[in-house]
Amino acid sequence: MSQLSPNRRSTMSEIAAISPEAELQNLLEAITAVDSVVAEQAAARHLQLTKPPGSLGRIEALGIRLAAMAGTAIPPSPEPAAVAVFAGDHGVHAEGVSPWPQEVTAQMVMNFCAGGAAISVLCAANHIGVRVVNAGVATNLPDHPVLTNSPIRKGSGNLRIEPAMSAEEAISALLLGAATARSLVANGSRCLLTGDMGIANTTPSAAIIAAITGSAAGTVTGRGTGIDDETLSIKTQVVADALERVRKLEQPVVGTELLAQLGGLEIAALAGFCLGGASLGVPVIVDGVISLAGALIAFDLAPSVVDYFIAGHQSVEPGAKVALDHLGLTPLLDLDLRLGEGSGAALAYPLVRAAAAIMTDMATFESAGIGGSEDAS
Amino acid sequence: MSQLSPNRRSTMSEIAAISPEAELQNLLEAITAVDSVVAEQAAARHLQLTKPPGSLGRIEALGIRLAAMAGTAIPPSPEPAAVAVFAGDHGVHAEGVSPWPQEVTAQMVMNFCAGGAAISVLCAANHIGVRVVNAGVATNLPDHPVLTNSPIRKGSGNLRIEPAMSAEEAISALLLGAATARSLVANGSRCLLTGDMGIANTTPSAAIIAAITGSAAGTVTGRGTGIDDETLSIKTQVVADALERVRKLEQPVVGTELLAQLGGLEIAALAGFCLGGASLGVPVIVDGVISLAGALIAFDLAPSVVDYFIAGHQSVEPGAKVALDHLGLTPLLDLDLRLGEGSGAALAYPLVRAAAAIMTDMATFESAGIGGSEDAS
Repeated sequence: MSQLSPNRRSTMSEIAAISPEAELQNLLEAITAVDSVVAEQAAARHLQLTKPPGSLGRIEALGIRLAAMAGTAIPPSPEPAAVAVFAGDHGVHAEGVSPWPQEVTAQMVMNFCAGGAAISVLCAANHIGVRVVNAGVATNLPDHPVLTNSPIRKGSGNLRIEPAMSAEEAISALLLGAATARSLVANGSRCLLTGDMGIANTTPSAAIIAAITGSAAGTVTGRGTGIDDETLSIKTQVVADALERVRKLEQPVVGTELLAQLGGLEIAALAGFCLGGASLGVPVIVDGVISLAGALIAFDLAPSVVDYFIAGHQSVEPGAKVALDHLGLTPLLDLDLRLGEGSGAALAYPLVRAAAAIMTDMATFESAGIGGSEDAS
Repeated sequence: MSQLSPNRRSTMSEIAAISPEAELQNLLEAITAVDSVVAEQAAARHLQLTKPPGSLGRIEALGIRLAAMAGTAIPPSPEPAAVAVFAGDHGVHAEGVSPWPQEVTAQMVMNFCAGGAAISVLCAANHIGVRVVNAGVATNLPDHPVLTNSPIRKGSGNLRIEPAMSAEEAISALLLGAATARSLVANGSRCLLTGDMGIANTTPSAAIIAAITGSAAGTVTGRGTGIDDETLSIKTQVVADALERVRKLEQPVVGTELLAQLGGLEIAALAGFCLGGASLGVPVIVDGVISLAGALIAFDLAPSVVDYFIAGHQSVEPGAKVALDHLGLTPLLDLDLRLGEGSGAALAYPLVRAAAAIMTDMATFESAGIGGSEDAS
């Protein structure tokens, strides 16, 4: 592992020769904070463009961040983009935290493959590729060209009463996510979007967000895709019980062990996907509360990963705001979304594309022969 | 004029035969409120799609509005879209309300034509056509394929001390805007975006917004593209003086007369453009504070026009919020923009496209063979 430089992508042969733990360590070491000097150069570029200084507000700030992620004063195009939708089932479903049958996870995976889901339609509209990854669906899934069918296990344990998975499974799921990012970038993607599918997965997400941010179960637990007061009460108690169970363990639970305890196989894979994208210097547009739980795990393992995150939207799920605040991110959109699948990231992607295009394609005052204001600042 | 049914587009020969006043009256009568029954049908359609009910939040609400505008339960595609950028100069520039030389208006028009401006780049990124309309630039402009070079007059009067234009000129500018909308729709556009260019044009916009909403000059006057405290103080006084001048006139000043007094030739044309789009049942994405001043004039003349408005974004200019509240619209984006040109509308357009695509392209629970939740509501 010492042979690998931090910014160099591991080759498959190197990976095969090292342990999963060592591969994860390499991944974490490959993530470097962006360069503030490049950000200053990008800000200076903005002042030359034919618009009043700062008049494109957060689109300008986003362009500067894209430049810094790439390490160039003018950012590269974030086209083409791809979303990876990670799917998994959850033992905690047995606690009655969702009105939807668990089978819907597998049914929706097939809907993604067939192109009929919301994320399919939003990606088609915005020219985003779709990769679906079975990280841990409870039932067997048929193969499909857009599906990476590599479940780490068939559904997680019930985090209320037991670990969601083993530490080894957590690392395997992280590496599955990282490999997905590497594969998409190797195939040309220049912007990655996070997506998820898993009936009941707002429950482990709430538990992870509570554990990492030190919040109470009641602060981060929400109605998910839409549950009634009684179910919300059950769900909040389940999250509280899971947190209490982990608190009572003999060893302090952090990092991949925390992930294993509170789980979600797709959440673990999402964390690895975030790390993988950041290790390659590619922007990662983070979706709603499940993606944010994965992003928090990634941030916990490698804090510089946040430099590559773009918060797509403000989900109505309360844990999303807690997670975004912890990460220090302001979302681009606030449209009362609570679907998941990557839908909020897909809706935000055109803003990312626009932010880069502004910096590459606009005329400068000099090139357009336009006089500036006397006191432009 | 009584021969024209409200929902029928006037032909050129009919227009030629009637007075500008009668043509405006026809335009206003062609604008009809959307049908709430169609909106209910569209809402019912959403419940069949493979997502938890309401989980796409404001994207669902937008899709329902698009359906209602078209009068069909499933909305037509809003593609292709086109922005019209209306340009004009302002006599009030002489009062020192902007740090930018007046010549920049004409220079920026040429930048739009050359494709180097922010709006050019954003439209290219989002596949939006661009039409530039000289409604009242102070200097002669060379002809260009994307420029409608039909100034009503060469710059407006100084609204602080005199009417911005005559009532006849105001009507001509309104009809220029409406003709632009008709022309774009006749050429295939299915969604219209408002844009503006005019050094000093946040001053007449503030005056119009104050007059129509009954707000004080200090409430609606802002820093435009970026002015210092001293200039803001001058600008606010200029707006207050203009409002006081109009208040002292012998006749109550309303409708096109108000527009003539406080003006902006591009603002008048924007009002007509809004009316023209709505008269054809086409959605109109409204940009920032200058576009909103035009939208308020349109709303004042034909209140049902608001049914066809989509508020693109929340500008940082204070008058924008006042205008949006008066119209009862919630903007899609809030990105600290203050550029104008139609930039916020262009950035919002992909959300409009997505909202329609969701309704047309998603699978239903039945078609995808997916079980719903027991208590989905």
